[in-house]
Amino acid sequence: MLYQTSNPHGGDIYVEPIRLDFSTNTNPLGTLPAVISAMKEALTLSSRYPDPYCRNAVSAISRFEDVPQEAILMGNGAAELIYSYCQAEAPRSALIADPTFSEYETALRANRCKIIHHKLSPENDFDLQEDFAEAILTCKPHAVFLCNPNNPTGRLIQPQLLRKILTLCEVIKARLFVDECFLSLTESKPAMNDLITDHPSLFLLKAFTKSHALAGIRVGYCLCSDRYLLQKMSRTVPPWNVSLIAQAAAVAAANETNYLRESAALIKTEREYLTSALSNLEFHVCSSDANFLLFRAYVGLDADLRKEGILIRNCGNYIGLGPGWFRIAVHAHEENEILIQSIKRIVKERP
Amino acid sequence: MLYQTSNPHGGDIYVEPIRLDFSTNTNPLGTLPAVISAMKEALTLSSRYPDPYCRNAVSAISRFEDVPQEAILMGNGAAELIYSYCQAEAPRSALIADPTFSEYETALRANRCKIIHHKLSPENDFDLQEDFAEAILTCKPHAVFLCNPNNPTGRLIQPQLLRKILTLCEVIKARLFVDECFLSLTESKPAMNDLITDHPSLFLLKAFTKSHALAGIRVGYCLCSDRYLLQKMSRTVPPWNVSLIAQAAAVAAANETNYLRESAALIKTEREYLTSALSNLEFHVCSSDANFLLFRAYVGLDADLRKEGILIRNCGNYIGLGPGWFRIAVHAHEENEILIQSIKRIVKERP
Repeated sequence: MLYQTSNPHGGDIYVEPIRLDFSTNTNPLGTLPAVISAMKEALTLSSRYPDPYCRNAVSAISRFEDVPQEAILMGNGAAELIYSYCQAEAPRSALIADPTFSEYETALRANRCKIIHHKLSPENDFDLQEDFAEAILTCKPHAVFLCNPNNPTGRLIQPQLLRKILTLCEVIKARLFVDECFLSLTESKPAMNDLITDHPSLFLLKAFTKSHALAGIRVGYCLCSDRYLLQKMSRTVPPWNVSLIAQAAAVAAANETNYLRESAALIKTEREYLTSALSNLEFHVCSSDANFLLFRAYVGLDADLRKEGILIRNCGNYIGLGPGWFRIAVHAHEENEILIQSIKRIVKERP
Repeated sequence: MLYQTSNPHGGDIYVEPIRLDFSTNTNPLGTLPAVISAMKEALTLSSRYPDPYCRNAVSAISRFEDVPQEAILMGNGAAELIYSYCQAEAPRSALIADPTFSEYETALRANRCKIIHHKLSPENDFDLQEDFAEAILTCKPHAVFLCNPNNPTGRLIQPQLLRKILTLCEVIKARLFVDECFLSLTESKPAMNDLITDHPSLFLLKAFTKSHALAGIRVGYCLCSDRYLLQKMSRTVPPWNVSLIAQAAAVAAANETNYLRESAALIKTEREYLTSALSNLEFHVCSSDANFLLFRAYVGLDADLRKEGILIRNCGNYIGLGPGWFRIAVHAHEENEILIQSIKRIVKERP
């Protein structure tokens, strides 16, 4: 028996013979050559301890995100920062809009937090709506968790609603935790960075994991002007938690801009292709703003695809979803076509 | 203001113009080219999430350490495992032999543990002696922390005494936590791996950080046959905590054997050179078994050396030491000679 340190998310690419992995949501353009080069160069310094202040990386992120350096804390992937936030602040109750990324709830529960579930509805493609704002006032949670765009639904939150939620959180003195890890791969990118300085209750989670295809390297960070919180969080993580390679990758990733624009454009085109192809097969496809999309097909589609070496994310274990719901990442066209052709053939041959 | 995630240990090589860093204790032979190559290859897979089970790395470590796979848990550096152990087990009291590595105490205190200090004596070069065994029986702590060889003293614990301590820990049902991160760079290497299976209260901390000069990469692991403990620990760390690069480095490092033999031989010769040179300057040099050595000189030697771009570890902040104590890593001969020549000149020119 081996020990694993994560909940099951995407497929297990390390045991199955996988041809195409649509179960993880990283940038379809792949890791930037400039970032790979920077990491290669950093490998020659492997014997050194990483900078415990992450100075170069924080400075590059500060310019990239246009926020002051003291509002930035890096982590060993965004996942570490979710756990670190929950441990440092230990909110007694948290409001979560389901379906969403399961690690918020796991991290909160590990710190004895009471979870209040707000169910989003498939009828409007799981859009976050006004009733969520009402739920904040009714439940008065200590923390509100949102993912923008939401994983696995792919939906962006309306900027006006998000502003209203922030105001409400300030009224009831709740922390607003917004996971923006997929935001830079959307076309509109309504980031809340400019609100950071004047709104210390706002906490933004970011990462190069998905946007720059660096899942293996672990490069996460968060933005928040509540210095006391960031300082407390920095004491919950182990010393030298951000590797030398991750810091070098962050510097290189933050200095590149065209790549995200190109990525978002490719994703938009290909997402439309996938949406229309899956809709033509009469699956219910949620309208997505992200680099992945959620759809409802028949129970077992994932198993049928796995036989062909294609992994998709079975969303049966998401709160608020169930059997028959799947999430796929948007890849480059050639791969998307292989996926669609495979699904078409499988559907046709079904008894 | 930036946030740092570690206590001050070695010097801050990221702000000072450093020519030679004797303040960190990594292998003087540097990172193995085979390990660098393996990491370079892994960089091409950066977009993939790391294997959350660390399968290949655990399998390689299992062969390297000759222990079953289920007795191994990897971490984002040994430091993460110190914190993870303290969080998972949360011992109510712990016995620590000072001076030693400060992170044990920091991690224990963060989990509300009462620390019992056992002072080692400079008269016998801080050797661990029989009175430590007596202290275990008197204090009946929930955990006993040892570092073998001890950092910063460089002293190995007598194998017979260590066996006795293990027996006593079993009698009083205490966990015996032994940090062996520097052990593979000693000549005798009296590892306790063969005791793991029959002694679930024994916990061995290991890393490739120092032995394979991989401090920047974060590759730690621990050996313990208490599966319940390892499982609990695996739930305290963030998901995907061990990067893809760290896992690739572990596989490559575990498959190399000559390197450690050569390293230990070089270290022995050079440690003798440094010991004799510093003794000739009438400094008190502790007899060391490790790749570093502790000595007492005059207050300010570190500042004088820093002016020449040489960093040594000021041990003034270790419990049980004080101003005038310093630790230096054993480097290759040429660098050691530069250090000694610099110290000689500084001492000669002192007013």
